[in-house]
Amino acid sequence: MQTLSDYLGIIEQNIKEIQYPERPSGLYQPIAYTLDCGGKRLRPTLVLASCEAFGRDVSQAINQALAVEMFHNFTLLHDDVMDGADMRRGRPTVHVRWDQRTAILSGDTMLTLSGMLVRRGCTAEKSLEVSRLLDKTAMEVYEGQQLDMDFESRLDVTVDDYMEMIRLKTSVLLGCACRMGALMADADTASADALYDYGVDLGLAFQLQDDWLDTYGDPIVFGKGIGGDILNDKKTWLSIMARAEDTSGIMNRRFARPDEDYEKIELVRGVYDNLELGTRCHELIDRYVDRAIGHLDKVAITPAARQFFIDIAEKSRTRSH
Amino acid sequence: MQTLSDYLGIIEQNIKEIQYPERPSGLYQPIAYTLDCGGKRLRPTLVLASCEAFGRDVSQAINQALAVEMFHNFTLLHDDVMDGADMRRGRPTVHVRWDQRTAILSGDTMLTLSGMLVRRGCTAEKSLEVSRLLDKTAMEVYEGQQLDMDFESRLDVTVDDYMEMIRLKTSVLLGCACRMGALMADADTASADALYDYGVDLGLAFQLQDDWLDTYGDPIVFGKGIGGDILNDKKTWLSIMARAEDTSGIMNRRFARPDEDYEKIELVRGVYDNLELGTRCHELIDRYVDRAIGHLDKVAITPAARQFFIDIAEKSRTRSH
Repeated sequence: MQTLSDYLGIIEQNIKEIQYPERPSGLYQPIAYTLDCGGKRLRPTLVLASCEAFGRDVSQAINQALAVEMFHNFTLLHDDVMDGADMRRGRPTVHVRWDQRTAILSGDTMLTLSGMLVRRGCTAEKSLEVSRLLDKTAMEVYEGQQLDMDFESRLDVTVDDYMEMIRLKTSVLLGCACRMGALMADADTASADALYDYGVDLGLAFQLQDDWLDTYGDPIVFGKGIGGDILNDKKTWLSIMARAEDTSGIMNRRFARPDEDYEKIELVRGVYDNLELGTRCHELIDRYVDRAIGHLDKVAITPAARQFFIDIAEKSRTRSH
Repeated sequence: MQTLSDYLGIIEQNIKEIQYPERPSGLYQPIAYTLDCGGKRLRPTLVLASCEAFGRDVSQAINQALAVEMFHNFTLLHDDVMDGADMRRGRPTVHVRWDQRTAILSGDTMLTLSGMLVRRGCTAEKSLEVSRLLDKTAMEVYEGQQLDMDFESRLDVTVDDYMEMIRLKTSVLLGCACRMGALMADADTASADALYDYGVDLGLAFQLQDDWLDTYGDPIVFGKGIGGDILNDKKTWLSIMARAEDTSGIMNRRFARPDEDYEKIELVRGVYDNLELGTRCHELIDRYVDRAIGHLDKVAITPAARQFFIDIAEKSRTRSH
């Protein structure tokens, strides 16, 4: 197994080497801009590592790693339009830097490119397998995004509803990344299934950590303003639990004026603290990390490969950005 | 060969029978609404007819016919968002009836569904062939849409630029539909290529006819207001030719007030009439129809099948909606 930074190097290099047609530049420049984002590249790393864990060279799965990263970035691009988000990772979003219709069309193009990449270099049989995996995952991601939007106008969202939403919107793509690498390495079905489950539980831990960081993170390390979820009344594990358990009425109080922002964040965080939700959220994250690591027992790989996946999972207990 | 209305019946029936998951309804209702549009269904008809022309049953290509229609409707849905169009075929567009983000997400879902449909029922080998055809076509359609948007701010668009744009944005999908049916029927390559060329030339004739109808059509039969292209200064064959040949200055005159709409349409149409552009446009349409029919000589099909494709092409000389 190579190291995390080896995989990252391979991925960045291959993203740089993607050849886009020169024209029309208005279509392809926003795609290169979106992919050149300096993200964690967790998903393509999982594809490459899963492939190598079963004894194959990473080159076997590089197109599929790019496909998953292309798909992920397509969802970010369109989500930013849907949410009207102006910034992502410290840079203006595509619909701000260019315009909205450019963002829509470039996103569509990325979705088609992800399908082209996932089939690239595959035999016909393999091509059908990876297409089915990406298609199924894509449909689940859309359903998750729709549920997330539906939640905004609902007051009866339960923790179970929320966990199902983040499973669809976020986690299945991490599961897909793990299974993709396994498929490209012709892994046995039981191992591929267990590695998929590892990815899904890792994804749940990641999303809960993201929610926690939005309220409790260090704004400098986290890279975005703290308390955005609270200000936007976003349904998260923290806010749903607080709504269910708090009796102070603060969760239903309306803060209408912009100069109340600071007060709102402080008051709501006070509710969370009284209920010890920050700690309890971390206990839940720990449970998902443990569960993710547990699935690895059913994956037929070397101890070194197993340790690689354990290390990734362990990091999500404590990550700060 | 069956008749046009037989094919239409098969297509409408199969569109009705598409099974969507019940939830989240916000994701799938707009898709069913979009597909239930009462369009001409020209593209899926071409898929079925091309398949049958080579002696296979239409059932062999029905999923691919639905895939092409799904893809076409996805482009309409996202184009309407990009253009801010409020109505399509006499009904509110999805982003008006629901909202913009629903339109974006439902469109994304339709694009993924079109890929799933095109591979449905295929052997692995065939699945790779049809995926490649749809992917390549999709990329061309996006490029055409981008060029169309680029044209808005350009004053140097030539007729050649315009014809290349409509080839990409509109015509290649008709070519794709023809080749798709041929592929599903295991037609020989020369026939599939020639039928593709037929579809592309038919598409060019169709788009020119659409442009002509927007200025010269009967508003009741055409189903939308006449003169929209003129009012929006849209680049069309008519307006590009008029800009190149007219010396009156009317094409550069600014009409700012809404109450000048009628005057603007009358004046610009007057320029077209002086240059006989309506007639010359129809001569060009005739040339593309002739060329489309000419390609059929290289397609190894029965005289009855050949006549079916000739009839479709002939209709585009005179269609009124």
